[in-house]
Amino acid sequence: MADRKRKRPVKADSDSEEASSSKGALAFKKRLKPDEQILNSITELRAAQKEKPQSLSLSDLNLGIACREVVDLESTSVRLAIEHTILSIAASILAGNGFSYQVPSRNNSNQLYVPELDRIVLKDKSSSRQFVNLSTVRKATITTRILQLVHQLSIKQIHVTKRDLFYTDVKLFQDQSQSDSILDDVSCMLGCTRSSLNVVASEKGVVVGRLIFSDNGDRIDCTRMGVGGKAIPPNIDRVSDMESDAHFILLVEKDAAFMRLAEDRFYNRFPCVIVTAKGQPDVATRLFLKKMKVELKLPVLALVDSDPYGLKILSVYMCGSKNMSYDSSNLTTPDIKWLGIRPTDLDKYKIPEQCRLPMTEQDVKTGKDLLEEEFVKKNPGWVEELGIMVKSRQKAEIQALSSFGFQYLSEVYLPLKIQQKDWL
Amino acid sequence: MADRKRKRPVKADSDSEEASSSKGALAFKKRLKPDEQILNSITELRAAQKEKPQSLSLSDLNLGIACREVVDLESTSVRLAIEHTILSIAASILAGNGFSYQVPSRNNSNQLYVPELDRIVLKDKSSSRQFVNLSTVRKATITTRILQLVHQLSIKQIHVTKRDLFYTDVKLFQDQSQSDSILDDVSCMLGCTRSSLNVVASEKGVVVGRLIFSDNGDRIDCTRMGVGGKAIPPNIDRVSDMESDAHFILLVEKDAAFMRLAEDRFYNRFPCVIVTAKGQPDVATRLFLKKMKVELKLPVLALVDSDPYGLKILSVYMCGSKNMSYDSSNLTTPDIKWLGIRPTDLDKYKIPEQCRLPMTEQDVKTGKDLLEEEFVKKNPGWVEELGIMVKSRQKAEIQALSSFGFQYLSEVYLPLKIQQKDWL
Repeated sequence: MADRKRKRPVKADSDSEEASSSKGALAFKKRLKPDEQILNSITELRAAQKEKPQSLSLSDLNLGIACREVVDLESTSVRLAIEHTILSIAASILAGNGFSYQVPSRNNSNQLYVPELDRIVLKDKSSSRQFVNLSTVRKATITTRILQLVHQLSIKQIHVTKRDLFYTDVKLFQDQSQSDSILDDVSCMLGCTRSSLNVVASEKGVVVGRLIFSDNGDRIDCTRMGVGGKAIPPNIDRVSDMESDAHFILLVEKDAAFMRLAEDRFYNRFPCVIVTAKGQPDVATRLFLKKMKVELKLPVLALVDSDPYGLKILSVYMCGSKNMSYDSSNLTTPDIKWLGIRPTDLDKYKIPEQCRLPMTEQDVKTGKDLLEEEFVKKNPGWVEELGIMVKSRQKAEIQALSSFGFQYLSEVYLPLKIQQKDWL
Repeated sequence: MADRKRKRPVKADSDSEEASSSKGALAFKKRLKPDEQILNSITELRAAQKEKPQSLSLSDLNLGIACREVVDLESTSVRLAIEHTILSIAASILAGNGFSYQVPSRNNSNQLYVPELDRIVLKDKSSSRQFVNLSTVRKATITTRILQLVHQLSIKQIHVTKRDLFYTDVKLFQDQSQSDSILDDVSCMLGCTRSSLNVVASEKGVVVGRLIFSDNGDRIDCTRMGVGGKAIPPNIDRVSDMESDAHFILLVEKDAAFMRLAEDRFYNRFPCVIVTAKGQPDVATRLFLKKMKVELKLPVLALVDSDPYGLKILSVYMCGSKNMSYDSSNLTTPDIKWLGIRPTDLDKYKIPEQCRLPMTEQDVKTGKDLLEEEFVKKNPGWVEELGIMVKSRQKAEIQALSSFGFQYLSEVYLPLKIQQKDWL
């Protein structure tokens, strides 16, 4: 083996001091200060979170046009809202004005990006959904059925998935996209979030670290969840009483990085909460992150792949997706800091060429599209990084750091990034 | 609403007594005995588990041909096995016999289904991987590098993913399929499982219910994991000290059903452990199920969709997948009982026609292929059920039970199935 090495030095060797890139890795490790000094780097950012006034809401702004957002409601309020809706309709029928719902429009032309809030909201356009009209009778019927089902859920106080809802009346709904779409209408009509209706998405996120919370009455200590972590509950309304002595929240794109940090108990060296949705963020993880951010008032640092897809994921956490824009205030966590892996890190941390990947044409196009997005444009640092990515046509995964040793991420890269306040 | 209902009765209505299928649902509910009598139904099955001799291993059989299986090894044993391998090679070189590995063949012709074990094992064919041979030098080099990396992992006692492993030497491995494949070779060569090498898969399974275990030293009580449940750890060797007062393990195909049972705390009414891999089973969940089965000696009842895919999933839990056949003894849980949803349940439980789905041509083909598989053929009950499925060309998801009310699954269907010992 030694002979082979002399002939062909293995660049990415992590443990042999002779390998060239390993020397670079060691150089970075030597720059690390004691842990408490590293943690000090985050104090300012953390203080800013605590001092920050409660985030703006639509009503704080004087937009000049009416806008609509949904809020979290208790089961009782949801029940009352439904009963109120149905009673108004009964009154309307009795008064000879017929049976119709007033349904807010959720399409593109009724959406508005509000820079002050940094998210998309719905404008106030709505349409009448009449029962005595051939073009709307079906939708009016389905709306009524969904209202009835959601009413049951609010009385029983149980949670179901969209799929369950669909199966309660396949004959009427015909296919799930129809019950899903009208469920969103009902959510807008009642002015409450879909979670308030007790209809939840399946969860895939996990959390670990310095966080204690209640899940359906059970007290969960996330420092005692081993390597697997705690699965994020699908129903956010059963999550309560969050407590934490963390200095920041570390949002991780991938489960491999999550596992590394959980096994190394990174959160004990640098008190933090580590959360991942294992790729594309699901609603449950987004709600959970938002709740942590609001209740614990902690800064959020993000660790994603250095590719357009990593940024897309950040954008979903930060600005939401367009088809749920009516619920953006509950789902979005605006000020997430982009910690890494950033395009400039590739050279700065001397990621070996062979661990970088060429961007496809589609990647480049996605990157260019992102440069036009508001959430990127308002942050000059991001524009610059993304520009470098598109120009170099190189991307890299978080795992590329493994070329310096498996624990380089937790022992060198992240501590150094934090020490240097190297977030954007 | 009342008017509409008279004209067009909504079959799948769960809460109104007038709806016809609801009457059927009520009839089933009336058949339920008190919970302790229902639990008695499972006593026999449970006793059989406790009395059953330790499951057969390859060495108990007198097969007449040499076969190969891998076992779980401690980090120290893995380290010693690697050192032993390298020292033999050094000795071979010094003796003038050159540098080569003896690598077990993992291809189809070297696989054998052993009915007594009900799983696939490897026969003893192996090939020489020489360094001084143009056709094998590359593989010999990669094998050496993987041995070196795995050796580091065993010393540091940390766990990484296959992706991490790949990134430690992208230049050599070129693409991940190469390092993955040779990692499997190394596993076979050393005679230990891939988890013993500390290379783990990402986990997506969750567990909830009457189980207490240690994850990396943290004591986890799965009755206190809310609705989200505990994420199953990626590294099974850090899982230990399982304790349980459960009467059975309920293996669930989908997370929606898992959530329903977790929220209803089904495990408190009928003491059990509920586990799901959220679809296609991953290695971590299979290892976890196997470990529970062996340590707790509990029967496993499975709740899957009534379609060929549901049975495919059962087959992976029970017999393993062909490309990991060398590790089948650790990954497979042979005697899983098929509780539901079974093709005969569709009529028996009067699942409304509109909640059943027509099978596609591909579904029918998969069903027919399954009828040829050993694990189906050895169970006449399964053959019959699958025959009915293929003939009727109808399938149904677990959620189809929602047509009788959201909690029908946990309150009627499962209790009744257990009471009637209706498993195969």
